[in-house]
Amino acid sequence: MRISDLSRASGVPLPTLKFYLREGLLPAGTARASNQAEYGEAHLRRLRLIRALTRIGGLTLRQVREVLAAVDDATVPDHELLGVAQYALEPPSSRGRAVAREVDELLAEIGWDAHPDAPARATLGEAIATLRELGWTVDPKQLRRYANAVDGLAKKEVASIPDARSRSDMVERLVVGTVLYERILTALRRLAQEHHSARRFGPGGGRDWS
Amino acid sequence: MRISDLSRASGVPLPTLKFYLREGLLPAGTARASNQAEYGEAHLRRLRLIRALTRIGGLTLRQVREVLAAVDDATVPDHELLGVAQYALEPPSSRGRAVAREVDELLAEIGWDAHPDAPARATLGEAIATLRELGWTVDPKQLRRYANAVDGLAKKEVASIPDARSRSDMVERLVVGTVLYERILTALRRLAQEHHSARRFGPGGGRDWS
Repeated sequence: MRISDLSRASGVPLPTLKFYLREGLLPAGTARASNQAEYGEAHLRRLRLIRALTRIGGLTLRQVREVLAAVDDATVPDHELLGVAQYALEPPSSRGRAVAREVDELLAEIGWDAHPDAPARATLGEAIATLRELGWTVDPKQLRRYANAVDGLAKKEVASIPDARSRSDMVERLVVGTVLYERILTALRRLAQEHHSARRFGPGGGRDWS
Repeated sequence: MRISDLSRASGVPLPTLKFYLREGLLPAGTARASNQAEYGEAHLRRLRLIRALTRIGGLTLRQVREVLAAVDDATVPDHELLGVAQYALEPPSSRGRAVAREVDELLAEIGWDAHPDAPARATLGEAIATLRELGWTVDPKQLRRYANAVDGLAKKEVASIPDARSRSDMVERLVVGTVLYERILTALRRLAQEHHSARRFGPGGGRDWS
């Protein structure tokens, strides 16, 4: 298809397509006799992935380029590819290092393998450090309850990734699943809090927060 | 104590204290003969709450004012007060209304009481609508698994609120607990995903995402 058809089929405006081509995010089309480039399914798939990375994942252009390079480099193993994508989703944090040993011990106790530089370690450490600064006691048993709650969910999430048809598809599933199911999980937690607050504090057993 | 001592004791800079006084967020001190105002424990507690609402909760000044008004209005019941604070934490969303009936059915099935206008309903609906737009199937059974995972956590969280010494303290616990334990929950989920990805895709059973 022509670039105008690619724009229509993907829903990506023409100026954005030209920008992606210039930046090398989208591979050039095949040159044709008519002096027009021909685009195909691979371009549509690439655009789907770029959209997931930017709109859902909130990645910067530099991060998108890194993830796409890993998708295209067949020497990068699948597990490492998923790591490149997931790590790009996490805002960098350095404050959490103060409680790094505690996080190490927690993960060792739960029995999770995660790289020493996994950004989620620092996010976890930072939240624990901030709670302490505010005078809260952080109970290791409570952390283990939270860990147990997500362990089964994550296992099922990872199990669904092999249904992906390609490396591009795998990364798209990881990014969309991580971000949107995170929103679902936290929204459900707030609704559950409202429900339990209604039962605990509400009038006559309580109904809602109206 | 004098305003300079209040600044030292609370860690809030003097210009910020004067701003809070002008804006009515912090009640005026008691006038003394020496022509200086006297501040006490209530001011320190109020500053703690303002800090939790702004720095941890990310609330705007207008939202802080609304929450403080509810804290100070003894006719607002405890459960409603917690609602005012929790609703202020949620970014408003209107797109989720398209799947509102589905969210209603899910909550009815789980048996959770939550107000029809609870912002987390719209957040949940929006995430489901976005997944569908991206061509994902959203399995009600999966949503129920997520709901079950947070139900027990939320019940324990709400049970810990009565340990609070005052309404101000209750709201502070709700805001800090909601935001920071949300970060802990999502960081743990990402670490759990890495672990299960290592076992599923990693070399020889896999180690990590290095």
